[in-house]
Amino acid sequence: MADARIGALIFDVFGTVVDWRGGIIREARALGRRKGLDVDWAAFADGWRALYQPAMARVREGRRGFVALDTLHRENLLVMLERFAIDDLDEAEIDNLNRAWHRLDSWTDAVAGLTRLKSKYIIATQSNGNVALMVNMAKRVGLPWDAILGAEVVGHYKPQPEAYTRACDMLGLAPTQVVMTAAHNGDLIAAADCGLRTAFIPRPNEHGPGQTSDLSPAQEFDFIAGDFRDLARQLGC
Amino acid sequence: MADARIGALIFDVFGTVVDWRGGIIREARALGRRKGLDVDWAAFADGWRALYQPAMARVREGRRGFVALDTLHRENLLVMLERFAIDDLDEAEIDNLNRAWHRLDSWTDAVAGLTRLKSKYIIATQSNGNVALMVNMAKRVGLPWDAILGAEVVGHYKPQPEAYTRACDMLGLAPTQVVMTAAHNGDLIAAADCGLRTAFIPRPNEHGPGQTSDLSPAQEFDFIAGDFRDLARQLGC
Repeated sequence: MADARIGALIFDVFGTVVDWRGGIIREARALGRRKGLDVDWAAFADGWRALYQPAMARVREGRRGFVALDTLHRENLLVMLERFAIDDLDEAEIDNLNRAWHRLDSWTDAVAGLTRLKSKYIIATQSNGNVALMVNMAKRVGLPWDAILGAEVVGHYKPQPEAYTRACDMLGLAPTQVVMTAAHNGDLIAAADCGLRTAFIPRPNEHGPGQTSDLSPAQEFDFIAGDFRDLARQLGC
Repeated sequence: MADARIGALIFDVFGTVVDWRGGIIREARALGRRKGLDVDWAAFADGWRALYQPAMARVREGRRGFVALDTLHRENLLVMLERFAIDDLDEAEIDNLNRAWHRLDSWTDAVAGLTRLKSKYIIATQSNGNVALMVNMAKRVGLPWDAILGAEVVGHYKPQPEAYTRACDMLGLAPTQVVMTAAHNGDLIAAADCGLRTAFIPRPNEHGPGQTSDLSPAQEFDFIAGDFRDLARQLGC
């Protein structure tokens, strides 16, 4: 049901809007082919992503000042290269592989659904990805954001409360006027705790064929939609 | 001439992209008609705008913490209402008049020119206006920004150097890859001092028929264009 009081939707991006796993596997595999490397690139992608939360945790817990995700990704990439005994990439190749995160494809419903949602509401990223990452990704596949918010802009990584509340403040809206949209229960529960509305979109292939997490909503959310087109329909777009 | 190394253009907005004076006069005059007020609204608009720089100066000089432009505009509006002896507006009317800054029309070449520039480069605001102001303005008239940067995002008001350098950092670009675009010599000179490229677009009617400032470039800039369409042409779009 459309709600006149909603002013904006803010979006988790990795997994919710774009297929990070498929994109990283694709880019790493292409590099591997060029370099003649025999690596399980799905395991490489999963391992790289698994280092993401612990790296952000150090920032969240104040053990490290704010660092953009591009930097954390690159540090974690060096760990992965050592773990997989890949030692023949030069600095430019490592930089380019790190920027694979800027070149992820969106889920097939994302651009169409976002375009419809944008006709009626503000749509903005609220990702832990930094601004350059989000802008480059959006331009490559045509994600029509009204604004790039997220960790680097608000200075806090999700699920810290400030990540959600600062985004609402910056949009000049009360939390009840803003819908946090994500494929991840934890992200939505944290947003709901800050007073935001919530929309759950399952992405059952985010982690590949064996995914066991976030297959269904863990609690009641304001909207539960099959994909972004369904969410647009539910919101009257 | 197109330059492959340019990655982004960042834009001054008030005066360069939108006609703040015409918009404020239009909105204030409509309110005055409804309220039966006999006021020189052009003088009112000019006076309101004239309070903008001194208000920001207190923030720039560290005499006050960072405050969003919406807040400075509202404080300055109260000064103007007292100066013009307008004492019969309620809080909702004052808030609505303050939000006239969110409802400014763009110069007629802006949307077409920006759309062309966006096809090849990142285009982002680098305005002293806050995020909500920039987003609401953009949605109303269709300004196709890739990102909303500016004072509230970078934490510094122009012409502080950090306003320009942080914007480049956030876009992941060197200052030499970014073109600051403005109708104001002072803004461009400050950006050039930080290593950015510069584009001057004269807006000889920004301050109304009697404008004497910024009618022509005060020094050499990288680009001097008649309007945004001309700039797009010069940049190969």
